[in-house]
Amino acid sequence: MALDAVLNKIDETLPQSLERLMELLRIPSISTDPAYKGDCDRAADWLVAELSALGFEAAKRPTPGHPMVIARKQGPGRHLLFYGHYDVQPVDPLSLWDRPPFEPELQDGPKGKLIRGRGASDDKGQLMTFVEACRAWKAVHGELPGNLTLFFEGEEESGSPSLIPFLKANAEELKADLALICDTGLFESTAPAIVTMLRGLLGEELTIHAANKDLHSGMYGGAAMNPIRVLAKIIASLHDENGRITVPHFYDGVPELPDAVRAQWQNLAFDHAKFLGDVGLALPAGEKDRTPLEMIWSRPTCDVNGIWGGYTGDGFKTVLPAEAHAKISFRLVGQQDPHAIRENFRAYVRSMLPADCTVEFKGHGASPAGQMAIEDPAFERARAALSTEWNRPASYVGCGGSIPIAGYFQSILGMDAMLLGFGRDDDQIHSPNEKYDLECFHKGIRSWARILAALA
Amino acid sequence: MALDAVLNKIDETLPQSLERLMELLRIPSISTDPAYKGDCDRAADWLVAELSALGFEAAKRPTPGHPMVIARKQGPGRHLLFYGHYDVQPVDPLSLWDRPPFEPELQDGPKGKLIRGRGASDDKGQLMTFVEACRAWKAVHGELPGNLTLFFEGEEESGSPSLIPFLKANAEELKADLALICDTGLFESTAPAIVTMLRGLLGEELTIHAANKDLHSGMYGGAAMNPIRVLAKIIASLHDENGRITVPHFYDGVPELPDAVRAQWQNLAFDHAKFLGDVGLALPAGEKDRTPLEMIWSRPTCDVNGIWGGYTGDGFKTVLPAEAHAKISFRLVGQQDPHAIRENFRAYVRSMLPADCTVEFKGHGASPAGQMAIEDPAFERARAALSTEWNRPASYVGCGGSIPIAGYFQSILGMDAMLLGFGRDDDQIHSPNEKYDLECFHKGIRSWARILAALA
Repeated sequence: MALDAVLNKIDETLPQSLERLMELLRIPSISTDPAYKGDCDRAADWLVAELSALGFEAAKRPTPGHPMVIARKQGPGRHLLFYGHYDVQPVDPLSLWDRPPFEPELQDGPKGKLIRGRGASDDKGQLMTFVEACRAWKAVHGELPGNLTLFFEGEEESGSPSLIPFLKANAEELKADLALICDTGLFESTAPAIVTMLRGLLGEELTIHAANKDLHSGMYGGAAMNPIRVLAKIIASLHDENGRITVPHFYDGVPELPDAVRAQWQNLAFDHAKFLGDVGLALPAGEKDRTPLEMIWSRPTCDVNGIWGGYTGDGFKTVLPAEAHAKISFRLVGQQDPHAIRENFRAYVRSMLPADCTVEFKGHGASPAGQMAIEDPAFERARAALSTEWNRPASYVGCGGSIPIAGYFQSILGMDAMLLGFGRDDDQIHSPNEKYDLECFHKGIRSWARILAALA
Repeated sequence: MALDAVLNKIDETLPQSLERLMELLRIPSISTDPAYKGDCDRAADWLVAELSALGFEAAKRPTPGHPMVIARKQGPGRHLLFYGHYDVQPVDPLSLWDRPPFEPELQDGPKGKLIRGRGASDDKGQLMTFVEACRAWKAVHGELPGNLTLFFEGEEESGSPSLIPFLKANAEELKADLALICDTGLFESTAPAIVTMLRGLLGEELTIHAANKDLHSGMYGGAAMNPIRVLAKIIASLHDENGRITVPHFYDGVPELPDAVRAQWQNLAFDHAKFLGDVGLALPAGEKDRTPLEMIWSRPTCDVNGIWGGYTGDGFKTVLPAEAHAKISFRLVGQQDPHAIRENFRAYVRSMLPADCTVEFKGHGASPAGQMAIEDPAFERARAALSTEWNRPASYVGCGGSIPIAGYFQSILGMDAMLLGFGRDDDQIHSPNEKYDLECFHKGIRSWARILAALA
């Protein structure tokens, strides 16, 4: 059978696939640091050359920042767009690396062979699983699979400043029937998973002003309002005693979990105690009637990410500060409207202010939650393919974080996305000694071959 | 009459008194900066020379820090100890000074002549009012007044590290019948005042620990407890809706204001609206049934002087921090016990902690309130003398801040203190362009002459 031939080819040529990944890993494409601008360009060129050699019509596409890479192969069937990013995080602190981060190496780890180096997992190793699956497919079939566009970004680790304008300017070219995004991981490092729920994110920064200058607490203490006290009272009132968020209308658009998904999540046998225990905690902090998995995947949050005011150095200063600050973010789910929540939050804060105080707000992004279209049969086919390859049932899972690209594909290109990947929790992405397990790379390539066969 | 002769002498010799103050102001005795150690020594030497020439038995007394100056004149009557400090605050930011801070000058101000220079008010100008009163007294009477010890410190602006050991080691020598402390000001810059109530101060720093490391709010948000939220809840609960502090037993030892003092304070016609309006506020923040003057002079407080946790830089970081911090201080009155309050506060905080969190405390000083012994007839005599000199009734007032020396005189030497001085609110002490009004210097010298005559 043709798929078996492709899988055999993948197994036989794994050393060559690995060598190509190593080549890409040797290019220090750190997007946030202007010193590496030439290297980002070089990584894009490398991809264009590889993809062109494979038979794609590939080109580097300029942006005001780092270039995009687009590779197209016309063909029969649904048009699939594969997304990955070729840029990587900075490497500091360099002193914590066991070897130079851009001199990758295949090492023997306690649980098997692993590929050590910056970008091995995030996202060069992951994007190459798809490229290598295409290569094996072509070797067996003589041509690339189906109807494909590959789209690689070079600014994912630096806030994607060029992404939205680029998507808008090239919408016709990039719009496909379904996007495949390979930048996520295995569930609990073991089970294949397709992310179908992504939380949105709303960021707010607020400054409470009281007196028109810092005061001495001996002179004014007791009589003058302390903005830290005002801020603390506001923050304390954002959750009720059951852990629910008190901003008016906050839960508008928060859906109940469908029974089928709830059942699947229960089958995951997620170890809630271990999840919290690993970071030194024991008690879930969210709504009292929810499990931690529900809390992080399907429930909205309100968290203070930063707070400051007054004297924060060594020793003591009896200052009554003129202002106090906090950065507060909301993770959003379902149909929660970030803009409505922003307005309701600001009005709620204003309603709690003493008449003497004023508040200033600064917005830091507002993206809605993403809900993938699992009713598209491609999802069930991909899930079956993953279950076969990993010999474990693949699950639809949530993701507590935000993967903005999925939302942009939906809002700008009107295209749903399927998020799946093969990273493990201990891959140390964004940290020193990043790695990607050879098993993940190998089975990742095989997974894509199976999915391409299933979707073709 | 002898007092009139002394007052006339003061008026006649004011230019010489001023020139001596200028000499002292030219010595940059910044105690906190080791670069000025020699200058502090020089200021002490200058005082010893002046006081010896006046007929005191004066000596510079070494400490591990800057020296003390003690000058003694045996004589009849109650033994009075006069305290002042010859060290000054640093001058930065130097760019905000209109002239070199240690090149003092007599200037014409909008409300009269003023002495411009670092230390002019705090505390060289003030201590010289007493020295110059003694000089005029001697010029008229042929000998110094009464039974005097002058005690000058050189570390008041740097936390007085040598003071307690020095007082303990020299208790027999320094113990007098009453201390006179000249380091305060006129009430509302116009009315003479004797400070009879000083608030105490208890400083606490707390750190709330939650997870064992910073977490990503996408991964853990909603499930993991946020220590900033815990801290905010604790701070918010420290005051009830009426502005009262909720720490158990906090008000133990807080006295009601005696009717006589309350009546006197009402007569002060303190402009509460202006007091708050000057700093941009309108609503008193303390207990609902108290006036701002009561709040700052006679009521205890709880204020957050600093708070920090999580990400406080530019932009946004969706971190769930592992810990959150606050510096909290309590101003104390009457017989409140700082050590008992510290224990009650810590127990109260612990009682509000989720089981998952821990708290660490660090103490930052604990001094009780000071209550001066106004039943000592010296107080009424001094008040009468001040009223005559300033042609306005002098008042017993409170002081919202802490002047630790008064407490040390009480606790270590068993000696009460009378605090009075001639500073004005716009003297810019501790700030650029410090000044002392010539009127304050002149009438200050005359005030001491009257008080010495009244107490002799």
